[in-house]
Amino acid sequence: MAGNITRADILRAALAILDSGGLPALAMRRIAGELGVQQSALYWHFNSKQELLAGLADDILERVPDVVGDTWRARVVTLASTLRAALLEHKDAAELVATAFAFKLGSKAPFRRFADELHGAGLMQADVETAASVLLHFVLGYTTNEQQHWQAATLGAIDAEGTAEDDLGPQFSTDRFVSGVELIVDGIDTRLQGPHPSA
Amino acid sequence: MAGNITRADILRAALAILDSGGLPALAMRRIAGELGVQQSALYWHFNSKQELLAGLADDILERVPDVVGDTWRARVVTLASTLRAALLEHKDAAELVATAFAFKLGSKAPFRRFADELHGAGLMQADVETAASVLLHFVLGYTTNEQQHWQAATLGAIDAEGTAEDDLGPQFSTDRFVSGVELIVDGIDTRLQGPHPSA
Repeated sequence: MAGNITRADILRAALAILDSGGLPALAMRRIAGELGVQQSALYWHFNSKQELLAGLADDILERVPDVVGDTWRARVVTLASTLRAALLEHKDAAELVATAFAFKLGSKAPFRRFADELHGAGLMQADVETAASVLLHFVLGYTTNEQQHWQAATLGAIDAEGTAEDDLGPQFSTDRFVSGVELIVDGIDTRLQGPHPSA
Repeated sequence: MAGNITRADILRAALAILDSGGLPALAMRRIAGELGVQQSALYWHFNSKQELLAGLADDILERVPDVVGDTWRARVVTLASTLRAALLEHKDAAELVATAFAFKLGSKAPFRRFADELHGAGLMQADVETAASVLLHFVLGYTTNEQQHWQAATLGAIDAEGTAEDDLGPQFSTDRFVSGVELIVDGIDTRLQGPHPSA
């Protein structure tokens, strides 16, 4: 069977393992075992485990739908929200994407999509890179923390009820997430109205 | 010797293991081995490995110095920069602190310090929580990615030279980090000048 497995077969098996066991379960040996092949068959499609993780990150990101909206502000907020929603669908997905992004192995699709919207809004190139970086780090950082928090609560490692009453740290909710994105968008807006002429 | 080890001894041994092997090396067995005690001696001071990791995160955060500055803007930017600098001193420290923070086990010192500055600036309470959350997620997300990136480059897993030439994703530097913090600060500033009266 080794010769017959495709890249898509491998990614499908890897995603199923991620969903059930999270990132720590994603071993090459286990993926090969699920597919009934030798580990060497995986390396025909991916040079390393890191490349496979990056491919899986890309696979999850490709499901993020195109966004519509009348203004760049609306589209940026919607893009951040749909990205978070896509990550919340798979265990540890935010951490997976953040890691692939740090290694610069995964596609830069989300960075580029934020950058395209901001460029279209007329932001100067240096500000586009800064703003896309802040947006992406916030989305990935917030969602990674959110997934870790709920997974820890599910495992009983922390008390979700108790922490919900705790007002001294950030809570996790769609409203709070969107408020954070809007604060960043307000910062971007000042650059459009500032000393730099907009395109 | 088991009866004689202190909480400080355990944290010192854990920090040395973190510095040499990163988060994956931080096993209770290894910490006990370094100290020449049984694992049970560690549980006298920490109920779980998660509590020990949170204690270590607090230990690193306590070294973040107080910041001075003439304005809240200057103090917030400096606080973000000194926090990043403290995290960069220890391998995987940003990921360690982010995890402790997601689990709400570590102290909320950095969140509270951002919140105190913003409260002092006259920001409304709901905006203080949003803004402190955005700042902290950006600092932890950026610095986690930065540490992962450089550690991967050091291991040869990625090509640091090649990626330095790549302008399609965020690069890591003090200037780029500060630009991101300043964008967030500009967003905060709009809330001070907005419909809400400042204190």
